[in-house]
Amino acid sequence: MEMLSYSNVQIGVDYYPEHWDESLWEADMQLMKETGVKVVRVAEFAWSRLEPVEGSFDFAWLDRAIDALHRYGLQVVIGTPTATPPRWLTTGYPDVLPVFADGQTFHPGVRGHRCYNSRSLLKYGTRIIHKLARHYSGHPAVIGWQTDNEFGMIDCHCDRCNEAFRDWVQDKYKTLEHVNAEWGTVVWSGEYSDWQELTVPYGGSPFQNPSLLLDFQRFQWDSVVKFQQTQIDVLRAECPDHFITHNFHSYPQRLDMYAVGAGLDVASFDYYPNTSPNKQATTPYSGALSLDVTRGIKRKNFWIMEQLSGPPGCWMPMWRTPYPGFIRAYAWQAIARGADTVVHFRWRSAVAGAEQYWHGLIDHSNVPGRRFAEFGRLCYEVNALADKLKGTELKHEVAILHSHEQKAALDIQPQAEGMDYYENIKQYHRVLTKLGIGCDVIQAGEPLEKYKLVIAPSLYLLSEELAAQLEAFAIKGGTLILTNRSGVKNINNICLMQPLPGMLSRAAGVWVKEYDPVGGDVHTLLDGQGITFECSQWCDLLAPVTAEPIAWYNDDFYAGTAAITVNSFGKGQVYYFGTHAEEGYWSMLLAGLADKLGLLRFAGLPEGVQATVRSGENGSFLFLLNLSKAEQTVKLDKPYRCELTGAVRSGPVVFAPYGVEILGTEG
Amino acid sequence: MEMLSYSNVQIGVDYYPEHWDESLWEADMQLMKETGVKVVRVAEFAWSRLEPVEGSFDFAWLDRAIDALHRYGLQVVIGTPTATPPRWLTTGYPDVLPVFADGQTFHPGVRGHRCYNSRSLLKYGTRIIHKLARHYSGHPAVIGWQTDNEFGMIDCHCDRCNEAFRDWVQDKYKTLEHVNAEWGTVVWSGEYSDWQELTVPYGGSPFQNPSLLLDFQRFQWDSVVKFQQTQIDVLRAECPDHFITHNFHSYPQRLDMYAVGAGLDVASFDYYPNTSPNKQATTPYSGALSLDVTRGIKRKNFWIMEQLSGPPGCWMPMWRTPYPGFIRAYAWQAIARGADTVVHFRWRSAVAGAEQYWHGLIDHSNVPGRRFAEFGRLCYEVNALADKLKGTELKHEVAILHSHEQKAALDIQPQAEGMDYYENIKQYHRVLTKLGIGCDVIQAGEPLEKYKLVIAPSLYLLSEELAAQLEAFAIKGGTLILTNRSGVKNINNICLMQPLPGMLSRAAGVWVKEYDPVGGDVHTLLDGQGITFECSQWCDLLAPVTAEPIAWYNDDFYAGTAAITVNSFGKGQVYYFGTHAEEGYWSMLLAGLADKLGLLRFAGLPEGVQATVRSGENGSFLFLLNLSKAEQTVKLDKPYRCELTGAVRSGPVVFAPYGVEILGTEG
Amino acid sequence: MEMLSYSNVQIGVDYYPEHWDESLWEADMQLMKETGVKVVRVAEFAWSRLEPVEGSFDFAWLDRAIDALHRYGLQVVIGTPTATPPRWLTTGYPDVLPVFADGQTFHPGVRGHRCYNSRSLLKYGTRIIHKLARHYSGHPAVIGWQTDNEFGMIDCHCDRCNEAFRDWVQDKYKTLEHVNAEWGTVVWSGEYSDWQELTVPYGGSPFQNPSLLLDFQRFQWDSVVKFQQTQIDVLRAECPDHFITHNFHSYPQRLDMYAVGAGLDVASFDYYPNTSPNKQATTPYSGALSLDVTRGIKRKNFWIMEQLSGPPGCWMPMWRTPYPGFIRAYAWQAIARGADTVVHFRWRSAVAGAEQYWHGLIDHSNVPGRRFAEFGRLCYEVNALADKLKGTELKHEVAILHSHEQKAALDIQPQAEGMDYYENIKQYHRVLTKLGIGCDVIQAGEPLEKYKLVIAPSLYLLSEELAAQLEAFAIKGGTLILTNRSGVKNINNICLMQPLPGMLSRAAGVWVKEYDPVGGDVHTLLDGQGITFECSQWCDLLAPVTAEPIAWYNDDFYAGTAAITVNSFGKGQVYYFGTHAEEGYWSMLLAGLADKLGLLRFAGLPEGVQATVRSGENGSFLFLLNLSKAEQTVKLDKPYRCELTGAVRSGPVVFAPYGVEILGTEG
Repeated sequence: MEMLSYSNVQIGVDYYPEHWDESLWEADMQLMKETGVKVVRVAEFAWSRLEPVEGSFDFAWLDRAIDALHRYGLQVVIGTPTATPPRWLTTGYPDVLPVFADGQTFHPGVRGHRCYNSRSLLKYGTRIIHKLARHYSGHPAVIGWQTDNEFGMIDCHCDRCNEAFRDWVQDKYKTLEHVNAEWGTVVWSGEYSDWQELTVPYGGSPFQNPSLLLDFQRFQWDSVVKFQQTQIDVLRAECPDHFITHNFHSYPQRLDMYAVGAGLDVASFDYYPNTSPNKQATTPYSGALSLDVTRGIKRKNFWIMEQLSGPPGCWMPMWRTPYPGFIRAYAWQAIARGADTVVHFRWRSAVAGAEQYWHGLIDHSNVPGRRFAEFGRLCYEVNALADKLKGTELKHEVAILHSHEQKAALDIQPQAEGMDYYENIKQYHRVLTKLGIGCDVIQAGEPLEKYKLVIAPSLYLLSEELAAQLEAFAIKGGTLILTNRSGVKNINNICLMQPLPGMLSRAAGVWVKEYDPVGGDVHTLLDGQGITFECSQWCDLLAPVTAEPIAWYNDDFYAGTAAITVNSFGKGQVYYFGTHAEEGYWSMLLAGLADKLGLLRFAGLPEGVQATVRSGENGSFLFLLNLSKAEQTVKLDKPYRCELTGAVRSGPVVFAPYGVEILGTEG
Repeated sequence: MEMLSYSNVQIGVDYYPEHWDESLWEADMQLMKETGVKVVRVAEFAWSRLEPVEGSFDFAWLDRAIDALHRYGLQVVIGTPTATPPRWLTTGYPDVLPVFADGQTFHPGVRGHRCYNSRSLLKYGTRIIHKLARHYSGHPAVIGWQTDNEFGMIDCHCDRCNEAFRDWVQDKYKTLEHVNAEWGTVVWSGEYSDWQELTVPYGGSPFQNPSLLLDFQRFQWDSVVKFQQTQIDVLRAECPDHFITHNFHSYPQRLDMYAVGAGLDVASFDYYPNTSPNKQATTPYSGALSLDVTRGIKRKNFWIMEQLSGPPGCWMPMWRTPYPGFIRAYAWQAIARGADTVVHFRWRSAVAGAEQYWHGLIDHSNVPGRRFAEFGRLCYEVNALADKLKGTELKHEVAILHSHEQKAALDIQPQAEGMDYYENIKQYHRVLTKLGIGCDVIQAGEPLEKYKLVIAPSLYLLSEELAAQLEAFAIKGGTLILTNRSGVKNINNICLMQPLPGMLSRAAGVWVKEYDPVGGDVHTLLDGQGITFECSQWCDLLAPVTAEPIAWYNDDFYAGTAAITVNSFGKGQVYYFGTHAEEGYWSMLLAGLADKLGLLRFAGLPEGVQATVRSGENGSFLFLLNLSKAEQTVKLDKPYRCELTGAVRSGPVVFAPYGVEILGTEG
Repeated sequence: MEMLSYSNVQIGVDYYPEHWDESLWEADMQLMKETGVKVVRVAEFAWSRLEPVEGSFDFAWLDRAIDALHRYGLQVVIGTPTATPPRWLTTGYPDVLPVFADGQTFHPGVRGHRCYNSRSLLKYGTRIIHKLARHYSGHPAVIGWQTDNEFGMIDCHCDRCNEAFRDWVQDKYKTLEHVNAEWGTVVWSGEYSDWQELTVPYGGSPFQNPSLLLDFQRFQWDSVVKFQQTQIDVLRAECPDHFITHNFHSYPQRLDMYAVGAGLDVASFDYYPNTSPNKQATTPYSGALSLDVTRGIKRKNFWIMEQLSGPPGCWMPMWRTPYPGFIRAYAWQAIARGADTVVHFRWRSAVAGAEQYWHGLIDHSNVPGRRFAEFGRLCYEVNALADKLKGTELKHEVAILHSHEQKAALDIQPQAEGMDYYENIKQYHRVLTKLGIGCDVIQAGEPLEKYKLVIAPSLYLLSEELAAQLEAFAIKGGTLILTNRSGVKNINNICLMQPLPGMLSRAAGVWVKEYDPVGGDVHTLLDGQGITFECSQWCDLLAPVTAEPIAWYNDDFYAGTAAITVNSFGKGQVYYFGTHAEEGYWSMLLAGLADKLGLLRFAGLPEGVQATVRSGENGSFLFLLNLSKAEQTVKLDKPYRCELTGAVRSGPVVFAPYGVEILGTEG
């Protein structure tokens, strides 16, 4: 297959030529080239420099910058500048500015001051993107575009959004009768008798009708997608040879990244693992999940568009400086989990503006130091392995189903103290990662044929289609793990009048007799071997129909009642977790399933060390990364070729803190 | 005496026919009847269904529902629908919506979006109530009305309230000179020179003039009362045979429930005891206080209009499910303390709207479960004892004086860290309840003739009338307990230029030399037997005049100074607590007073077990309720007839968790 | 030199004649006179009484009050009434009211509801001050004026401030090009293309451009100064014989007190040391700093305009009552550190208004008690020593440089968790105070010739002038202590492209290789003797050039790296602290420097005892104050004359709790 421009394995930097005196440019680019940098992202916040006053465009400075980058052999990705509308636009056309639920305007000064439905933003944003796209379409350095920057939910309540939301609802439900019926507005006398009565939910209160609140979320998701599509349309038309991406930021977030990602060629992620020693024990695992989530957006390799390069800070106190090896190891972690290009934020720390202490590779002094030296080593290593790694991918037999819809609905109505949709996913993913079992994190509804084991946390809103797909997966031999709070509601956030888990009861072979939202109260489970485990959050009291209990409650009035069951369903097995079991229980269960199902696994990992495999036509590459400050020893299962040194590795291998091994075998 | 329709001892349910497909109605009502339900509350949030658009009324569906209820022998209470104005009203007449102190509008979506002074609310609310009242006046099933739902303080700052507040102040003080003098506005140059300068207190800050803030509270109290009276006027005129009630909710609250209750036939309470095992040790005592407070509103028996039936939840995480026996025991607790009818909220959990997880007796699945079975047992038992219990009442010799005015004034200016008016009342009431001494909780100013002992916490705002009444009570032989922060201010929140406790000094026989607001710093007391007790919140340094000290401070520069005194005054005794003594001290003192005064008491109660007596022409009924999850043993003082089984009980009786005994003796 | 009226050593009270019935006045003043009170402050919140309606003035009541005070030999200071504009003004001219960043109006009810840039405030404020000044210019009792009351930053965002800020920026930078360049607005597309686009920073977010935020602070500082100057101009013209002061309140605060103080004759401070026993261990040291800060405003003696007289309270719960001796000891502390007149707040506790529980010397009952008796003793003692103490001053050889600019910039962008500019100054000052070394706290930039040792914390914003001054100080033989986060930025809050500490690197003889913002993570230091000390907040990794390391990091990847250095520079020494060392390290270092530099010092102070010396033509007076609740013993270095008793004191002297000794020697 022909590799696209975004498939190279390489290192880049974020660079803001407009922030620096032009006299610095050449030295900067010379050093980039010498260090081994291949890609530079530019211009995503430069609207005021590209169009200083309405209708007057100045691309000359950017031409000089991109021409210079090209001279040093650097490829360029341009960001569309809509995340920071300039002052002439917000002053002259204030409909650009979002309005919060309390009626306050979101004033400029901070980034992201733009209503996705604003007509002025659409008009002036489209115009400058059109001019930029046409201007740089043929430039030999330019390879792609980033839409906007770090889309987020603004929860705009402006008049235009009010109108657009009303149209959205009308488009979905056609008649007010239908709205009233599907949202259950009769409760608390909320029925609409005229379309003008229907507004965005002012006040921002979770007390409101949950069906309205969920549809308002969906409307906002669609607003972002629609807004981005106007940019994509222009870019596709003008720059058919360039790729388009967007840089998602930290998870969980309220965005529908699957819908945003659908229009893109490749997804990007802004990756800032926590540098605090107090948080480093959890950071490599939550970071691994973030990378797997990003890979799941388009179910293929991705970019890091901003990678941590120094201590972040600014409006918050600064974080700790990265420990020696931290920057290199985390960049390799990104690649190990499917990043092809890793762009570091940023070349040099800003001397002005609100991000002065979001440190770059080089400090304000412009004297390259310890961190830059480590970055140099990284560039060297990545360039050395770039050809081998190009085209390799991660292939997994386990999937966790993720859903921004479930998260949204569960955030609107928290179920129990301490119960958090994404934190639970973190636990399942962490257990798999510690066990050395690779997994994909994909949107619920994606095809499941390639997986042997699927974990489907809290399918709280359940459609008939999804229930049928999961049944079919199990019937054909798949192993499915369901958890409590599944099958509770239809997709309009209305409770189903069925015993739980509703449409999944047949597959699970179990009914929920009643439940106890135990929240933070810790209860215990007893498994078949008489071992006890802690559980919390929620306790479904299970009545198995065709399922077999495998763990029972050990406390309260329901001691002895089934808590976890397994059901043979077709050729497969369906587990149902009526409660949130502790990590130890999941570890025991998943290790057993790995043996039983013969799952690919790198066993014997010590705490903090992660293993993944990228493979392709060039062979297989086992990444072993010690993402801890402690020395660790890993026992290899067979001899490998060390790709960084060429030496052969076998038996016990000692990892220094933040030590990295890339071990090759034939494909 | 002829018993009114609201005096039956019986069980009801809250039912929302408009929430359910009509095909479910008959089965629901059939099951209600079979289970022993006698009363159903309907329609208090149904305005949009009763008047879908302005001026177009549709009572047909409610006719069908009430007719059906009647066919199953169920009595009906209708709620007036003003707590949830429909969207056509709030859109067309936005003056209905309250305005917060910061100028934000209280938008619909949540309940309670109505300004009590709104002219449109008055006009349209009165119209629909008039139509409803006339329509159902003669319906054989309908027995009474609930005004609005759970009145609360909205703190509306709209233009209409501004104007109404100005009128209220003018009506009270007549001239601005008088306002300026009585409020002390000269401080900080706040004097009014023109009525237009006088507004509601914008900004909501406690820094403002405390006399203004207290009168603004009073204005709001009056606004609720005036608003309710417009409804009562209509109902009395149209439905002279129906009773009128209102459902008060959790205490403490900022409402003047005595003034609201004055216009009612009977008070109601919405009773949701906390189901969390971590809070169950305190819940039965704070619940007992809530019930006694409710009984004090009209100083007679009352209704529970919403009784806990399952785990509450929604905007907050769900609570724990009620332990087996919890639902039954707490319903009996309500009856034991003066509830006649107990209406459970709600028949079935809502499948739509913001209260989906405020669970009813039946879950969303519509499969009756453990909780419903327990409810059925409750209905059976209550129906079995209904005739015997009808007309019985609680008769107590101890009263705690409660005052929403004191609470309001003390909330405006907190006295010391950790000092809370209602929490202190909770302590006194809890000690009495644990000692098995029944008490009434009544508004300060009510007649005291029937009491031997009166506890009057912090009479901070003191009128000459109240001081004189309390003096007279003691002179005639009553025992009176006063506490610190009494006699501080006049009723306009102005400090009195008198040594404390001011007008109560003669009765207490003591002066306060100075005070130390110790707050959370724990000090110790020494009593006459040399026993030490902890004290906190406040330390008055007492100079006894005619009183005798009974406890002395044991710390700080005032060690050895009198802390608690008793004064013989006329034929009675007046205790003065200069400090907040711990529960153990109060327990010792009150047990001694019970012996000395020969107070009615059921001695020897273990932790968590409560005793009350209802008596009347049919005899006396001792309720012993184990409101704990532990087994408990109670030693009976004599043989009793077990009213639930007919057996004779005597000696030690073992109570299962949440066990209930109703023991009869002759009247 | 001729002593001005404000140089007498004496006691005063704050008195509000308008709060009390005139029948109380004579008795109050008689008691003041008998007690030894010499000064009374009046009228600073009395606008509504002085001008009840627009243009109608009534000074008759104040005439009667001041005439009466005069009859009792009491001197009078009048406050200008602009801190509390009356209701007729705020209602008729709402531009007087400030507007918060979120657009909310700051309504009257609380004090300080005045925009410093309001044209109506200027017009009406100037008019009444003019009339007052002319009226009382010749009154024999009146000696001076207080401007407004406790100036604070209001952060007004009204239209007038918007316009004034724009003018301020235009005046400073002349062109938008210059603004854009100096603020670095190109970051995030914030460039201005038209002056109308430039506004105050709405929303109040620290995410905004830090150069804009710092200049907005400066604009506000200037607004206060300009507003005060309009009052000073009137007062100087009408009352050339009267002094002018302003009462600053608790530090740190966001005001530029140096600029406000520049226009005054004498500075005043409102001194409320914390009475809680839990906070009394730190209160005497932070109080000492507050007094030294106040003395530094004009680098000479000052007034206390409000001195604690009883438990404060009101909107917050009340504080503890002052322990016996507390009121007297803290008044003496004020005098010991440079206060000449100490005015107690307030004569009698208010019976009305929002400050009812900010207790005065006499309680609401008007019965003088324990606190008043102690105040009487204080007055007696001060009057006895008044002549001797008059004209005496504190003379110190150590200075701490303080800067509201540094604090503002560091608040806009917090550097590390737990790092606080003023808290660090507190530590340095506390160590000096415990060592018995007197120090001045002066604004950075003041002359340093008289000092041997200067501590300059975090010179974060650094001008060339300041760097040069400090270099010169060291070159001439001074000892200078610098700390981390120095030389980071230019005065427009833009990072300097120089290795740290930038312009101070030559004097410090050291470069910062890199840094680790450790925040609350505690690390350890090793000094040359092998002793370990804790450090936190920040770790600069130091590369000494000409400096010698004196402490090294003992942890993390930079163990062994220099942390603290000393550099011989000219005839002086420059210390550089790369980290925040614990109090013990500073204590060791400063004790050593005291020996080495021969600093004046009273050695051997126990915890809680403070020593200062006031000296002048009349001799020297050593103040030894036990500001603790424990008995303490101090060993005198030589015999002294006890000024309060006339006895000779030598050897060990036992101090009772809150005991005071004033020990004289010849001048």
